Amino acid sequence: MNVGMATEGFDFVRETERRGTNSMKWNVAAGELPMWVADMDFEACPAVRQAVEARAAHGIFGYADIPAGFGQTVADWWARRHGLEVAPETVVFATGVVPVLSCAVRALANVYENVLVTPPVYGIFYNSIRNSGRTILESPLRQTRGPDGAPLFGFDWEDLESKIADPQTSLMLLCNPHNPAGTIWSGEELARLGELAEKHHVAVVSDEIHCDIVAPGVRHTPFMAASPACARVGITAGSASKAFNLAGLQGAYVFSANPFLAHRIERELNTSETAEPNVFAVEATMAAYRDGEAWLDALRKALWENRARVEAAIESWGLGLRVVRSGATYLAWIDCRSVLGLAELPRSCRGQACSSGRSALGAALAGSDPAVTLPATSRELARFLRSETGLRLSAGTDFGTGGEGYLRMNLATQPSRIADGLARLEAGLRAWTARA
Amino acid sequence: MNVGMATEGFDFVRETERRGTNSMKWNVAAGELPMWVADMDFEACPAVRQAVEARAAHGIFGYADIPAGFGQTVADWWARRHGLEVAPETVVFATGVVPVLSCAVRALANVYENVLVTPPVYGIFYNSIRNSGRTILESPLRQTRGPDGAPLFGFDWEDLESKIADPQTSLMLLCNPHNPAGTIWSGEELARLGELAEKHHVAVVSDEIHCDIVAPGVRHTPFMAASPACARVGITAGSASKAFNLAGLQGAYVFSANPFLAHRIERELNTSETAEPNVFAVEATMAAYRDGEAWLDALRKALWENRARVEAAIESWGLGLRVVRSGATYLAWIDCRSVLGLAELPRSCRGQACSSGRSALGAALAGSDPAVTLPATSRELARFLRSETGLRLSAGTDFGTGGEGYLRMNLATQPSRIADGLARLEAGLRAWTARA
Repeated sequence: MNVGMATEGFDFVRETERRGTNSMKWNVAAGELPMWVADMDFEACPAVRQAVEARAAHGIFGYADIPAGFGQTVADWWARRHGLEVAPETVVFATGVVPVLSCAVRALANVYENVLVTPPVYGIFYNSIRNSGRTILESPLRQTRGPDGAPLFGFDWEDLESKIADPQTSLMLLCNPHNPAGTIWSGEELARLGELAEKHHVAVVSDEIHCDIVAPGVRHTPFMAASPACARVGITAGSASKAFNLAGLQGAYVFSANPFLAHRIERELNTSETAEPNVFAVEATMAAYRDGEAWLDALRKALWENRARVEAAIESWGLGLRVVRSGATYLAWIDCRSVLGLAELPRSCRGQACSSGRSALGAALAGSDPAVTLPATSRELARFLRSETGLRLSAGTDFGTGGEGYLRMNLATQPSRIADGLARLEAGLRAWTARA
Repeated sequence: MNVGMATEGFDFVRETERRGTNSMKWNVAAGELPMWVADMDFEACPAVRQAVEARAAHGIFGYADIPAGFGQTVADWWARRHGLEVAPETVVFATGVVPVLSCAVRALANVYENVLVTPPVYGIFYNSIRNSGRTILESPLRQTRGPDGAPLFGFDWEDLESKIADPQTSLMLLCNPHNPAGTIWSGEELARLGELAEKHHVAVVSDEIHCDIVAPGVRHTPFMAASPACARVGITAGSASKAFNLAGLQGAYVFSANPFLAHRIERELNTSETAEPNVFAVEATMAAYRDGEAWLDALRKALWENRARVEAAIESWGLGLRVVRSGATYLAWIDCRSVLGLAELPRSCRGQACSSGRSALGAALAGSDPAVTLPATSRELARFLRSETGLRLSAGTDFGTGGEGYLRMNLATQPSRIADGLARLEAGLRAWTARA
């Protein structure tokens, strides 16, 4: 735990009002509580607010250029916060991390070639691959249990290597740190991955959008920093949007030490018209990176207080639910298999490419006991919770294979709303189990 | 001339300061005067400024949704201002008109099929086609002279029909009103075009971004309003960004009465990640369309006062320059062929597909007199003017075939800067002619 972290001077407690602001998250019915899509119910940090308000007050909103200082500001941030040296001139603006991923899919894999993902993982990875007609290849993470019995997620190395070695595989989308499981990949793991990728000529786009939301005292390892091979095969997609709550300002960037990979993505960003900033994107990013560190560190403290509260509450209910012990993200990945009647997935069904978790599960169950009733998945549970209690969570089924038994809860809100969410969740789960 | 138009209460005279705001237009050296890219040196209208400042003050910048009222507001605008009935549910948000064009190219023409353009035309049309590997097919506009001797641009119908009838042609990008020539296409012309397009199964994307910047008293005819056939083959790309100076807020939209065409473009907007708004785009558009009309009409009056001043000045210099008499846009399309030694293009070289104006010209000249010295084009002239006087204009060569002899001057600035620009232009042209 870092010393000197404090929330003094920043307000993560008073409830904000986001209804009526065209917020995607809060586009829910009256009385509903949204704890789903990954943005925060907090105001931006003072430096960003000041930059945005100053730009708004200027009043002229013509075409925007990317100032020369943008690359340097991004590079300074990565050097200072993550120990990664980035050449400022390699930093390329993009309107979002998802645009970078979609462009990478088109630029670095041909139609029908494999793009490798490690589910359960951010569901939009699947869209980015499908939308451009590339083939999704899954290497599901291995679910284990930590010393305290809580589930953990890690690579299934044997399976991962076989998928990387597939000659049809051209690109891997890595989520580092991992969303939704919050896994902090170690330097050793990333180096091993980079070695395999280089050996088999697979480019790795590392989505590091969550990298600044790490537990107090925890360090993120950038993929490109893990080894020289990682630097040669890696492309980093980053943004201030997750840590500083700026998703609606559409500012992000991509950089790589491999100029051939970077060039391909930069061209595709241009072709897809996602290379040009609105007038606020660059200003807000630079303000956050230059003057937002104290706020960010206070935020992390507040988020991990929320997390501790949620873990303790959920595991106190006696329903068998566990929360994955997460070193990163403001997302709780909640193992609900106990109330869904889902056993852990048999080993034999892991590592199969399939288009949805349900089909892998169905296939596994169909092979084991023809009389078995197919259990519910988290999709049904999430719908039930919403209709019974108004609590909107993300269903684990949105995250691909391995997510069937999980719910994702967004912790980036005020403690009063965390308490409200927990009360709704408990009531909903008890109603769900009573239903059976 | 409309009665009741006034600039009272709005300031189009006081010089604004855009340096240091990451303005693309003003990213020029100290002392240079930028009159090139099409944005305005004016502050946004009060309604937009208020909406943007209010959203900025909210301070939470998470993911934005498109509110239900957006389509209705756009539809109301088109009905009120342009007499076009638009079904609100067909209005699809996009991050810009150029993203719509690029998506249309990918969605409505296959690789290597022809996309038809009528140069001289907005140069980005060419990029949108090239970037996705479609084939540019040009039907150059016919240059004639009006009763006052000033040049005019119109369709070359014989050529246009042959290009539309080419079985390889799948899509036409229409610029309505036309940029850079400012041509207001009549309902009859548009209906004739729609009839040809329908006969030969060519979809027409009508870029109507300039449609609100028409001369006082002049009316714009939307392509889709010109005939039932136009409504069946047409897709309209629109935005408040040009008329209200909001290019840097990245808000636009597309609509079509043909659900098959609209569906194809909507899917491609999603795939290219240009379908989602930043937190300001929708608010600013809606504020402009709901409460910006008085400002817009005052702006038009100010712009046409600038235009009259520029036309009179340029044609008083005795250098043979003429300004195209334009009913739309805030762009002056200046015929500089007299000082470039460029004759009007021979009839025989019009209507040939070619990748640049220079090659068409070269071909024409090569066939006429082997001893001729190839004359300079407006690219050289624009460079000369910038280096001699610091005046940055757009070279006509950026607009494809037919632009070799023209310069484009942006009139959307204060009268004092118009005067400065005219002084620089005259001095530069005199230096250019003295050079020979």
